[in-house]
Amino acid sequence: MDIVAQMKKFMEPKSVALIGVSRSAMTIREAPFDLLANLINCGYQGKIYPVHPQATKIRGLKTYASIADAPANIDLAVINLPRNMVPRIVKECVNKGIKAITIVTQGFADADDDKGKQLQKEIASAISGTDTRILGPNTFGTANAYINFSSAFVAIQMERMPIGFICQTGVFFSTSFADLKLIGKGIDLGNGCDVNFADGLKYFEQDTETKVVGLHIEGMRDASQFVTQVKQVARRKPIVVLKTGRSERAAQAAQSHTGSLVGKDEIWSASLKQAGVTRVDDIEELSDTIKAFYILPPMKGRRIGIVTHSGGFGIMGVDACHKFNLKIAKLSPATTKRLSVLLPSWQNVGNPLDIWPAIMVAKKASLSEAQEIATQTLLDDPGVDAVLCILGAFASPTGMGLNQTIERAIDSHPSKPLVLYFYGPLAREAKDKLEETGKTLVFSSPDRAIRALGHLADYSEFHTKSQNIPLP
Amino acid sequence: MDIVAQMKKFMEPKSVALIGVSRSAMTIREAPFDLLANLINCGYQGKIYPVHPQATKIRGLKTYASIADAPANIDLAVINLPRNMVPRIVKECVNKGIKAITIVTQGFADADDDKGKQLQKEIASAISGTDTRILGPNTFGTANAYINFSSAFVAIQMERMPIGFICQTGVFFSTSFADLKLIGKGIDLGNGCDVNFADGLKYFEQDTETKVVGLHIEGMRDASQFVTQVKQVARRKPIVVLKTGRSERAAQAAQSHTGSLVGKDEIWSASLKQAGVTRVDDIEELSDTIKAFYILPPMKGRRIGIVTHSGGFGIMGVDACHKFNLKIAKLSPATTKRLSVLLPSWQNVGNPLDIWPAIMVAKKASLSEAQEIATQTLLDDPGVDAVLCILGAFASPTGMGLNQTIERAIDSHPSKPLVLYFYGPLAREAKDKLEETGKTLVFSSPDRAIRALGHLADYSEFHTKSQNIPLP
Repeated sequence: MDIVAQMKKFMEPKSVALIGVSRSAMTIREAPFDLLANLINCGYQGKIYPVHPQATKIRGLKTYASIADAPANIDLAVINLPRNMVPRIVKECVNKGIKAITIVTQGFADADDDKGKQLQKEIASAISGTDTRILGPNTFGTANAYINFSSAFVAIQMERMPIGFICQTGVFFSTSFADLKLIGKGIDLGNGCDVNFADGLKYFEQDTETKVVGLHIEGMRDASQFVTQVKQVARRKPIVVLKTGRSERAAQAAQSHTGSLVGKDEIWSASLKQAGVTRVDDIEELSDTIKAFYILPPMKGRRIGIVTHSGGFGIMGVDACHKFNLKIAKLSPATTKRLSVLLPSWQNVGNPLDIWPAIMVAKKASLSEAQEIATQTLLDDPGVDAVLCILGAFASPTGMGLNQTIERAIDSHPSKPLVLYFYGPLAREAKDKLEETGKTLVFSSPDRAIRALGHLADYSEFHTKSQNIPLP
Repeated sequence: MDIVAQMKKFMEPKSVALIGVSRSAMTIREAPFDLLANLINCGYQGKIYPVHPQATKIRGLKTYASIADAPANIDLAVINLPRNMVPRIVKECVNKGIKAITIVTQGFADADDDKGKQLQKEIASAISGTDTRILGPNTFGTANAYINFSSAFVAIQMERMPIGFICQTGVFFSTSFADLKLIGKGIDLGNGCDVNFADGLKYFEQDTETKVVGLHIEGMRDASQFVTQVKQVARRKPIVVLKTGRSERAAQAAQSHTGSLVGKDEIWSASLKQAGVTRVDDIEELSDTIKAFYILPPMKGRRIGIVTHSGGFGIMGVDACHKFNLKIAKLSPATTKRLSVLLPSWQNVGNPLDIWPAIMVAKKASLSEAQEIATQTLLDDPGVDAVLCILGAFASPTGMGLNQTIERAIDSHPSKPLVLYFYGPLAREAKDKLEETGKTLVFSSPDRAIRALGHLADYSEFHTKSQNIPLP
C-alpha cells in the first residue's frame, strides 16, 4: 500500500475502533482522561466503534465484545489496554484487515525492564509481512482539526491552521498558553516502533492543507532516511525543528522516554541546516517561528526598518538584528524626505525611526497619523524587506486608531512582513485585537520579533540559492 | 549635601512643583499624556504646586504664575517646557533653593543639532557650584509605588515590589504585559546630564524597601565610577543588568537616543561579571531574573530535581540545565526508595522523575497525591538544591488539588526554590492562581525556568566565593 494512502488511514480516518475504553467518565481519580469522551467532544463525524468485553453501550454508542465482532472496513484501531494484552489485540486487528493501528499504552521500549522491550518486538513482528502499520506505542496518536478528530486521551485545542506537526511526545498536542497552539494536523510518534518521521513527512509533503511542518525530535533509529525525506520536503514547505536531547544526560533521558537513539548534536545541526530546515532552541522559538512561516509573507532580503515610540526599544531592535544576522536598512533619499516633515527641526530621519519626538515635540501629526506615515513610508522603500513597529499602547489602541493604521499598512504591502511589539498598560489588548485579524504577529519582545524574521530570511535565501522552486 | 539625602528629594518628595502643565486634559490630540493628571491619579499625598503663567486653578489645584511665586521648601521641581525655556527655569529653581530638578523635555544631547548639545551644557552650568541636582533631560523622572508618586507623563503600573530600577528610557516605567511589571521604585536617567547610575545605586544600596536592583544601560560617561559603585552594591543586593547597544550600529543609535557613549560590549560583560552582577540578554530574561531574585529563596548549589508529567518536557529541562550550567541531581537511595512505590514495576526512579506512568499505569495514587509525594521527596533530598515541576493543567488545577500541593511543598521547604512550568488548556489559569500566592514563579518554558535558577546559583556562588556577607 502506498505510504501516503496508509498515512491517510491515521490522519483522515472515516471509521475508528477504540479498544480499551472505560465505562466511567474518569480513568484516573480526578481528571477527565477519556479517549472516547474526547473523541465525541471533538465533534468527529466518522464512525466510532468502541470495543469492550462486557458492555453493550457506552456514552450512547453500541459497543462490540471484540474487534472481530465489529463491522468491516475500519480505517483505524486505537488500542489503550494494559501492555501484556497489546500483542494479541494487534494480531486480531491485523486479522480483521485493519491497516492502521495506534497504540496508546505505555511500558514498551520506554520501560526500564526487559519485558517492555520484548513486548515492543512482539507487536512489531505481529505486523511484519502485512500491510498494517503501527503508530506508537506510548502515543497520543493523531489529530486532525479539519475533520475534528483526535485520539488523545486529554482534551486538546486544535484549530484549522495550515500546520502539520510530528512529535515524540503528546505534550505538543495539549497546548500551553494560547500562543503555543500548534496542531492543525498532528502525529505523535511515541516510541516509533513502526511509523516514523519520514512517513509523516511524506504525508505532509502532499497534504494541501499543510503549509508549514513542525517537528519535535528526541532521536531516531534511521536518521539517513529522515534526512533524505526532510531535504525533499523543505524544498516545498518550510520545516521547523525542535531537536531535544542535546546533552549526553538528556540523551539518556530520551532513551528512557521513548527508547530513541539520539546522536551527536553538532551533526544534527549541520545536517538540518544543509537540508534547509529551520532549527529552533526552545518551545517559544518553535511557536514564534511556525507562526511567522504561516502568517507572514516571505522575506525577500535581510534589510529591516524599525518604527518605534521608544528610542530605548529601538536600540534593542538593532541589537537583535546584529544577533540574528539581519541588517538595519539604509533609507532612500525619498523616504528620508517624506519622513523629515514629521520630525522636530532638531531630529534627523534615522532607522530606527523614533517617532515619539514627532508626536510630543513637533506635533505636526497625531499619534496614529505619524504612525501611519512612518510605517507606510518604510514599507514603500524598496531597500526595506520587512518592518518592525514598536508601539506604546497607553490608551485603547483601537480607539487611538493604531491597529487600524497597522492593518492598512499590511493590506497595502501584502508582500512585505510587518511585525510588532507592543508595550504599555494596554499591550495585551492591542496584541489580541491585532492578531485576531490573522494578518500579522505581535511578539513579546523586539528580540523575538527579529529572530522570527531572521528565520524567514534564512529560508528565503536557502530557496534562492538551492533551487528555482518558488516560495510557497 | 549627602547624595542619599539628595536622591531622597527625587525618590521620596514631600512636595513637587510641576512647571509646564497643560490646562487641557490632552497634550497631544488623542492620548492622555498629562503629567499633573497622572500624578493626581497615582494617589500621591504630598503637596503639588502646578506652575502656569496664566491659569489660577488647574484640576482643582491652585496654580502659581512662576516658581518664584510658589511656596518655599519644595523638594522636587519637574520641568516640561519647550527646550529653549529650560535653562532659564532651571536658574529660577536654583534661586528658589530647590535641590532636585527633573527635566522631562526632549531635544538636548539627544537631538541631532548643535543647539540641543549647547542647551544641555547651559542647564548643567546653571547648577554648577550649587547643591541642586538635575535628573534628565529627556526623562520620565522618578516613580515610587510606596508613596504613590510618579513624574511620568503616561499612566504607569507601579506596585509595592522590592525592586529598584534605574534605566535610560522611560519604557521600563510603562510595563508591557503584566509579567513585565518592574517598578517598585524607578529612576529614568534620560540623557543623564547630572544624576547618574552611581547616584541611583547609592540610593538603592541603603533603601530598606529595595531587595533587588535592576539596571537598563545604554552607555555612560563615567564607567569606572559606575563599576566601583555596582561592585559595592552587588555584595549586599542582587543587581540585574540589561546592557543594550551591543553592536556598533546600536551604539550609534544609543548615541542619538540619549547622547551616551557606549564602549566595547566584551569589556562590559567582563566588568559586570567580576562585579557579581547578573547580565541578561533581553527584556524577558530581565523580568524573569528580577522576579526570581525577589520571590525565590537563594540557591545553595547547582543540583536540580525535575518532577514532570511529560517525559518530553523533562528532556528539555535536562537540555536547559546543560545550557545554563546547572546539574541534574543524583537522587539519594532514600529518595529512590520512597518514590519507587509510586511507579509501575517497569519504571525505575529517575531524575527527571516522569510521574505520568505512576498516574496512568500504576494508579497507586491520584494525580495530586503522586505530585505531592514526588515534589516533597525531591525537596527533602539534601542532594537537591531546587526543584522544577512540569505539570499538565488539563482540568482546573485548583479543583485537581495541584496548586495546593505545590503550595504545601513550598511552605514546608522555604529555603529551596521550587519553580514551575504548566502546559495544557488551563495552563494560564494555573499560573495566575499560583503566582497570586507570591510564593513561586511559573515560567513560560522549562528553559526559562532553568535559566532563572542558573542566575540564582551564579549569584550565590559569587557570594560564597567573594565574601562572607550573608545572602539577603
